[in-house]
Amino acid sequence: MAKKIILDCDPGHDDAIAILLAHGNPDIELLAVTTVVGNQTLEKVTRNALAVARIANITGIPFAAGAARPLIRQVETAPDIHGDSGLDGPVLPEPTISVDSRHAVDLIIETIMSHPPKTITLVPTAGLTNIALAARLEPLIVERVKEVVLMGGGYHVGNWSPVAEFNIKIDPEAAHIVFNEKWPITMVGLDLTHQALATPDVIEQIRAVGTKPATFVLEMLEFFGTMYKSAQGFDAPPVHDPCAVAYVIDPAVMSVQKVPIDIELTGTLTLGMTVADFRAPPPADCHTQVGVKLNHQYFWDLIVDALKRIGEVHI
Amino acid sequence: MAKKIILDCDPGHDDAIAILLAHGNPDIELLAVTTVVGNQTLEKVTRNALAVARIANITGIPFAAGAARPLIRQVETAPDIHGDSGLDGPVLPEPTISVDSRHAVDLIIETIMSHPPKTITLVPTAGLTNIALAARLEPLIVERVKEVVLMGGGYHVGNWSPVAEFNIKIDPEAAHIVFNEKWPITMVGLDLTHQALATPDVIEQIRAVGTKPATFVLEMLEFFGTMYKSAQGFDAPPVHDPCAVAYVIDPAVMSVQKVPIDIELTGTLTLGMTVADFRAPPPADCHTQVGVKLNHQYFWDLIVDALKRIGEVHI
Amino acid sequence: MAKKIILDCDPGHDDAIAILLAHGNPDIELLAVTTVVGNQTLEKVTRNALAVARIANITGIPFAAGAARPLIRQVETAPDIHGDSGLDGPVLPEPTISVDSRHAVDLIIETIMSHPPKTITLVPTAGLTNIALAARLEPLIVERVKEVVLMGGGYHVGNWSPVAEFNIKIDPEAAHIVFNEKWPITMVGLDLTHQALATPDVIEQIRAVGTKPATFVLEMLEFFGTMYKSAQGFDAPPVHDPCAVAYVIDPAVMSVQKVPIDIELTGTLTLGMTVADFRAPPPADCHTQVGVKLNHQYFWDLIVDALKRIGEVHI
Amino acid sequence: MAKKIILDCDPGHDDAIAILLAHGNPDIELLAVTTVVGNQTLEKVTRNALAVARIANITGIPFAAGAARPLIRQVETAPDIHGDSGLDGPVLPEPTISVDSRHAVDLIIETIMSHPPKTITLVPTAGLTNIALAARLEPLIVERVKEVVLMGGGYHVGNWSPVAEFNIKIDPEAAHIVFNEKWPITMVGLDLTHQALATPDVIEQIRAVGTKPATFVLEMLEFFGTMYKSAQGFDAPPVHDPCAVAYVIDPAVMSVQKVPIDIELTGTLTLGMTVADFRAPPPADCHTQVGVKLNHQYFWDLIVDALKRIGEVHI
Repeated sequence: MAKKIILDCDPGHDDAIAILLAHGNPDIELLAVTTVVGNQTLEKVTRNALAVARIANITGIPFAAGAARPLIRQVETAPDIHGDSGLDGPVLPEPTISVDSRHAVDLIIETIMSHPPKTITLVPTAGLTNIALAARLEPLIVERVKEVVLMGGGYHVGNWSPVAEFNIKIDPEAAHIVFNEKWPITMVGLDLTHQALATPDVIEQIRAVGTKPATFVLEMLEFFGTMYKSAQGFDAPPVHDPCAVAYVIDPAVMSVQKVPIDIELTGTLTLGMTVADFRAPPPADCHTQVGVKLNHQYFWDLIVDALKRIGEVHI
Repeated sequence: MAKKIILDCDPGHDDAIAILLAHGNPDIELLAVTTVVGNQTLEKVTRNALAVARIANITGIPFAAGAARPLIRQVETAPDIHGDSGLDGPVLPEPTISVDSRHAVDLIIETIMSHPPKTITLVPTAGLTNIALAARLEPLIVERVKEVVLMGGGYHVGNWSPVAEFNIKIDPEAAHIVFNEKWPITMVGLDLTHQALATPDVIEQIRAVGTKPATFVLEMLEFFGTMYKSAQGFDAPPVHDPCAVAYVIDPAVMSVQKVPIDIELTGTLTLGMTVADFRAPPPADCHTQVGVKLNHQYFWDLIVDALKRIGEVHI
Repeated sequence: MAKKIILDCDPGHDDAIAILLAHGNPDIELLAVTTVVGNQTLEKVTRNALAVARIANITGIPFAAGAARPLIRQVETAPDIHGDSGLDGPVLPEPTISVDSRHAVDLIIETIMSHPPKTITLVPTAGLTNIALAARLEPLIVERVKEVVLMGGGYHVGNWSPVAEFNIKIDPEAAHIVFNEKWPITMVGLDLTHQALATPDVIEQIRAVGTKPATFVLEMLEFFGTMYKSAQGFDAPPVHDPCAVAYVIDPAVMSVQKVPIDIELTGTLTLGMTVADFRAPPPADCHTQVGVKLNHQYFWDLIVDALKRIGEVHI
Repeated sequence: MAKKIILDCDPGHDDAIAILLAHGNPDIELLAVTTVVGNQTLEKVTRNALAVARIANITGIPFAAGAARPLIRQVETAPDIHGDSGLDGPVLPEPTISVDSRHAVDLIIETIMSHPPKTITLVPTAGLTNIALAARLEPLIVERVKEVVLMGGGYHVGNWSPVAEFNIKIDPEAAHIVFNEKWPITMVGLDLTHQALATPDVIEQIRAVGTKPATFVLEMLEFFGTMYKSAQGFDAPPVHDPCAVAYVIDPAVMSVQKVPIDIELTGTLTLGMTVADFRAPPPADCHTQVGVKLNHQYFWDLIVDALKRIGEVHI
């Protein structure tokens, strides 16, 4: 049976690919896409999500906008990585579907509470503002979801500071809320996603698909690669967000390790760090684990396969 | 025209009196009572609010329960002041009305958005969790409310730490959210409410009312006085929360001073302090002011008058 | 018998007056003047101290330079109050004495340890870097000094932030060290010193002395007044540092109150606050007290008297 | 020419071995041993240092005691690793030399300032209180030392918290001072020293030396191993401190990497973390580097060789 997920994202190049992977893979049932300020403003990332829906011909599920700002901190976006639109590179089509009238937080709560217990996996690939608000507005969702598989953080790697990652650092209080609730959490952080590089051979495999959605991915990766090269010195860009979706599809795509994690909220140099305690074996009730080693080939096979299944779309 | 308010509270002895004042005063139209964890657990303070409704025969308005815990911090209650029930002292009647089915945060948002702009005053007399969540879920309420008149904080006085007050300290992040939104805020803090003492002559005036609701107030004040004496050394208890309602009734009940205020979130000794900057005249766009000097006689006259108007109630 | 003091300062206009008061008052025996970075760089404030020595004809005691920077923080000076030289206004004479070869910290330790126990009062009127280093280098001084009477902090008043004072805020870690040692501390803070205004009648009394040192004080106060007016809006400048010396001369010059004090080191808005806990009577072993109410006339009489005793000096 | 070092330590089992290595290796000229509170109280670690001097027949150099407490924090020791004496396991002989009359900080300053520039390497293997105080008391030492090679911290490994190491965490403000001075610093942290395990074959090599000092080392390692097993689950104990001495003897004993490092002072979870920024190539003026990969065989060969050179000692 396909795994039901809600994808909470801020497209964002890698978020867009995560949407495509979730849509194109037969083992995933994408129930809803929700958006949150992050890589760009809420308005921009929501528009981008709708554009991706058109590109991949995703219909029949709600796309809902959520928080336009973090809980406490000022809005911080990442134009140096994702450009002014949040999805620079390809020419984006006008969306053909409309945003859902519900607030993303309400949609998340309603969707979880109206499904049987332990059937829905939350897949956040952005700041955790929506998820934190949902957990505070309806605490029952914590028991009811199957698990949370999120892209964010890093146990030994940072990007937005020496030791903090963008998704966590832009709303550390939201991350603190999410990581301190006792749902099972798989943190797919930078330690893992920096292995998900769109190397030249990957690019060739995607090019070989030959469809408009595949071309869209190529155009995104070209821009993304240029930005990552100039901003952080990467030779090939790390494609973070689909790693979380891939883990839901098949946990075999990466090795994981159980480890207690908490979020630093007061550090001068360490604000938003996902502090993992590797000093001892994890306690029996440890509800957090981290992605460690990616099966690079398997991961990209999943992406290419999803693109093939999506097939040609007349945009 | 009567002033429309939503009272967000955690009864709590002084919250209960605030409800009675809001209900009994003809210049206040009480639209809703919402509850939040604080003096006691959400369950207890909600039950207490419903009991107060029966005592004062308040009907026709919703009582809704909100957040059961602060945004980030662990739950902290005040049994040493309010007892195990949150309203120890009087025997509480069984409520005759039920709690509203809506979440307090949703009720607050719906009420504000369905009324004309600048017609509703928010009166929080508890931790600011509900108000903060409402502001994050529906940012438009900030522009739409008339003002926020809250009991909490203190510019030179603390009670839950040397420099922080209970309502702010139990959810400082929520307070930070509320104080940093640009709605007009009147902070009725400890500097003011420590002047609102239920002195023996006040007790006599309430006793003279002679009704069951007045007796209920007397029984509350007796317990409250005993607790404040033992916990904080007060000869007569400070009756905090009705001061905020009284200010809405008539600002002349206290003098106020405009001053910028922000909330300390990282201090070791100062967590939850309402940091007021008195060093210079307030800037032109200063949206915060603090209560400074209470007209003690006027304040208690308002309470006594409200009790008289409530009259006898057959509980 | 005259009270022996070591004056640790950063002249600084009010520091200069503190030196003159200590030198001119017969109840004070000034053992040494030590300097520390603060109002200006160590080099400048040391030179200023030597210049003041010439102006008042202070000879026979060591003037030693100490810390050129705070323990942890970057150097922060106050040119908007004290000018580029640290003592702008008067034309400063070339010093005729030389700085002592010892480090101020060593001089402080040696002086204290070579005098009988409980005979020396430390009078810091600057950042507490020297005093903190001395306490760490030779912990025995804590038991051996008579008391510490310092200018700094404020229990309800700030100047370098809404709730922090310059001397504490520029080296909060040093202040934390000093306030947490168990020597008797009298904190003469802004609450007190903002009463020590050099009002026009005070100026007239000083003018009436008619000597060169008095003229030097007048020239300083004129500059100081102009700066305080423009920087902080004062009509007459608060002359902080001599208040601490005055308290040593005669505690009757001000009322004091015992209250526990600690220093905030991690606050975002409150860094360097001298957090006083007024919630309950001070514990029996409370070793800190604060100046509350100044006898303005008595204070300035002490200053004028000291100037008269210093008499004319041929600079 | 032998490299001149001052060893600042808190013996401590691994400190004791560091002293033996420094004494026994012909490429090191040990100028002084200074002690500081850490693994145990100042009194105990100083006594232990003197006992080690007797065991290895170290004479003619000063052993001086320094700080008895950290700059700001309360004293924290490590009896669960080093026992009640700080050097539990072997029977310690009565020292035959006396502690120097100078304070360690004064001795460090005098030694550095009386030698030619860039000739002395500071080797701290304990909390950095002494070194920080020396740098503040005599800032000229920063330019004058050759380099600082310290055991402490960890870029990806913690022991006293998930991300902080004991020597740094017990006095993080001192570490902040030391790491922010611009002297060349080699941080030999847990990432490196957890490779310096006293494995059974190592034990055999030491046993084969057959002298009393070697037996003393064996007895220490036996106790140390037992404690590390029970407290942190190690099969063989990591022998931290001699790694720093070994690096001074021959940098080839480990690979190092330049990386900027700063110390976290306000983190709730990360206090005392040595925050290393690996995101980009180090800047040209980067003055800090970390030990990465130990040559295990070479390292232990140096230890065994030193023991052989020390030879038999009649204690």
